[in-house]
Amino acid sequence: MKLATLRNGTRDGALVVVGKNNSVYASASDIAPTMQAALDRWDEVEPKLRALAEQLEGGQVEGTPVDPTQMMAPLPRAYEWIDGSAYINHIVLVRKARGAEPPATLETDPLVYQGGSGVLLGATDPIEVPNIEWGADFEAEVGVILGDTPRGVKAADASKYIKLIVILNDVTFRNLIPAELAKSFGFFQSKPATAFAPFAVTPDELGEAWKEGRIHLPLNTYYNGEKFGDPEAGPEMHFSFNDLLQHLTKTRAYTAGTIVGSGTVSNDDRSRGSSCLAEQRMLEKIDSGEFKTPFMKPGDTVKIEMLDKAGVNIFGTIDQKVVDAD
Amino acid sequence: MKLATLRNGTRDGALVVVGKNNSVYASASDIAPTMQAALDRWDEVEPKLRALAEQLEGGQVEGTPVDPTQMMAPLPRAYEWIDGSAYINHIVLVRKARGAEPPATLETDPLVYQGGSGVLLGATDPIEVPNIEWGADFEAEVGVILGDTPRGVKAADASKYIKLIVILNDVTFRNLIPAELAKSFGFFQSKPATAFAPFAVTPDELGEAWKEGRIHLPLNTYYNGEKFGDPEAGPEMHFSFNDLLQHLTKTRAYTAGTIVGSGTVSNDDRSRGSSCLAEQRMLEKIDSGEFKTPFMKPGDTVKIEMLDKAGVNIFGTIDQKVVDAD
Repeated sequence: MKLATLRNGTRDGALVVVGKNNSVYASASDIAPTMQAALDRWDEVEPKLRALAEQLEGGQVEGTPVDPTQMMAPLPRAYEWIDGSAYINHIVLVRKARGAEPPATLETDPLVYQGGSGVLLGATDPIEVPNIEWGADFEAEVGVILGDTPRGVKAADASKYIKLIVILNDVTFRNLIPAELAKSFGFFQSKPATAFAPFAVTPDELGEAWKEGRIHLPLNTYYNGEKFGDPEAGPEMHFSFNDLLQHLTKTRAYTAGTIVGSGTVSNDDRSRGSSCLAEQRMLEKIDSGEFKTPFMKPGDTVKIEMLDKAGVNIFGTIDQKVVDAD
Repeated sequence: MKLATLRNGTRDGALVVVGKNNSVYASASDIAPTMQAALDRWDEVEPKLRALAEQLEGGQVEGTPVDPTQMMAPLPRAYEWIDGSAYINHIVLVRKARGAEPPATLETDPLVYQGGSGVLLGATDPIEVPNIEWGADFEAEVGVILGDTPRGVKAADASKYIKLIVILNDVTFRNLIPAELAKSFGFFQSKPATAFAPFAVTPDELGEAWKEGRIHLPLNTYYNGEKFGDPEAGPEMHFSFNDLLQHLTKTRAYTAGTIVGSGTVSNDDRSRGSSCLAEQRMLEKIDSGEFKTPFMKPGDTVKIEMLDKAGVNIFGTIDQKVVDAD
């Protein structure tokens, strides 16, 4: 089942069910007015939403054509947005890029940070860059949306708390990171609003590709119209979403609608390209002694999408343009 | 005007207006169902809430007696919870306690971190401590709740975005901090759910005590029934809330209902005591060579409140007991 949030002039938009081929949607407002409302009463509303999805697929309910620019982020604001960094290859490369060592516990203790969740961008919203000296970068990631999740979940039991899967662009101002991390309180100004592809899908929508808390499909990123990377999101996700949930719930519980990200998808195999500019730049530096690819500037575009084995664009496309903001 | 959130079996509770002497409340559900709903339409609902507050004060509306245990956090879940660390004395002491240097930019660049906001505790909710080895500590703070706040706010214009003032207990697992900060992604497991006093008040409720983005009153903390600290929250708040807002809005905007904390209130004058155990412990270590006061264990109690010049308990009392959770 695919869900989305239709722009309707309100802060949180209107919940819609989207057909499997992404072309039409049906209003789900009679079942739950918003995505958050659906997640708040998930056990009750999920069967109703699935029934509506079947009716839409079968033609018993008339669909309205999908206009991606009319879709907001699945959750236009969320109660929590927690981003992991679960691909070891990414951690090693970006730390090298800023002259930092990977943490000693790299392979045993997940890296996560709490992100800003009050303003989340839709798939075609512009990336505002007030200052190109800040080093604007994209980061293509996969993520999950939780139902109510108690403290103390073990990885083996974690998958039942994962209600929806998303893909996202964790926009980052690279050049603001070193000074922030030097203060030891983590990222803040270096992480502006995150953008999401329009469709949030239930795990079964991925079929065999959803396995043991990982998504076994490539995540495609296009930068200024050219393929930039298509790394596999599955095998090299060192900590699965199940592992991340065990880590997150050690000391607290989460409300329905909490979003958890994988971190930048990254493969050791260079032929798969990268999901962010920082990795590409570091590889250039290793090979040639200097960074070549500049960070993003107004006019640059980034597209992120994930196709299933049959070629269906599962989540719809993140399709953003960088704009001068001030 | 004082607002609160009444427990009613729903996730977000019911908005009520509270009388100035804290003894009675009146339902505000006809104006806005929840605190978040009120903040989402603040300009429209504020005058109506103020009118109701006047009617309650004047006796034209009958009040219901306040039972503090029936109050949830003003926002039982918030879209963002951002905590500063604006009292230099606190930063210096707690860093010394864990053998770390204060950041080089201590007096010029505010320290803030993004906290978990999906589960916020009411004033009398227990503090769950699954493991006493984690070093559970309280941190008494003041905070503000924002209306919609754009990117790029300057300190001089910031006060208009501050709609409500709160006090809070930023519970911290001290012994989980060093390993987390060593990974450089900031606090996460070391920060379980934060607790809030029941009443969120408009700035005018503080009269002269609200000045230039600071609250010029002492914040009282009682630990196991004894006064633990009563530091002044105003003069030594090195970065005011206005300064913090300028810092926060450098790269992004905030939705209504975003909560911003001051960090642990702390004075250089030792006779004012402390607002957390970590400071007290560091002072013991400086004086005697060893930490004496242990961190919290099941059965310990912490009370936090702030009185105005007339002795009125402005926000109501945070009154929590530590419980063994697992």
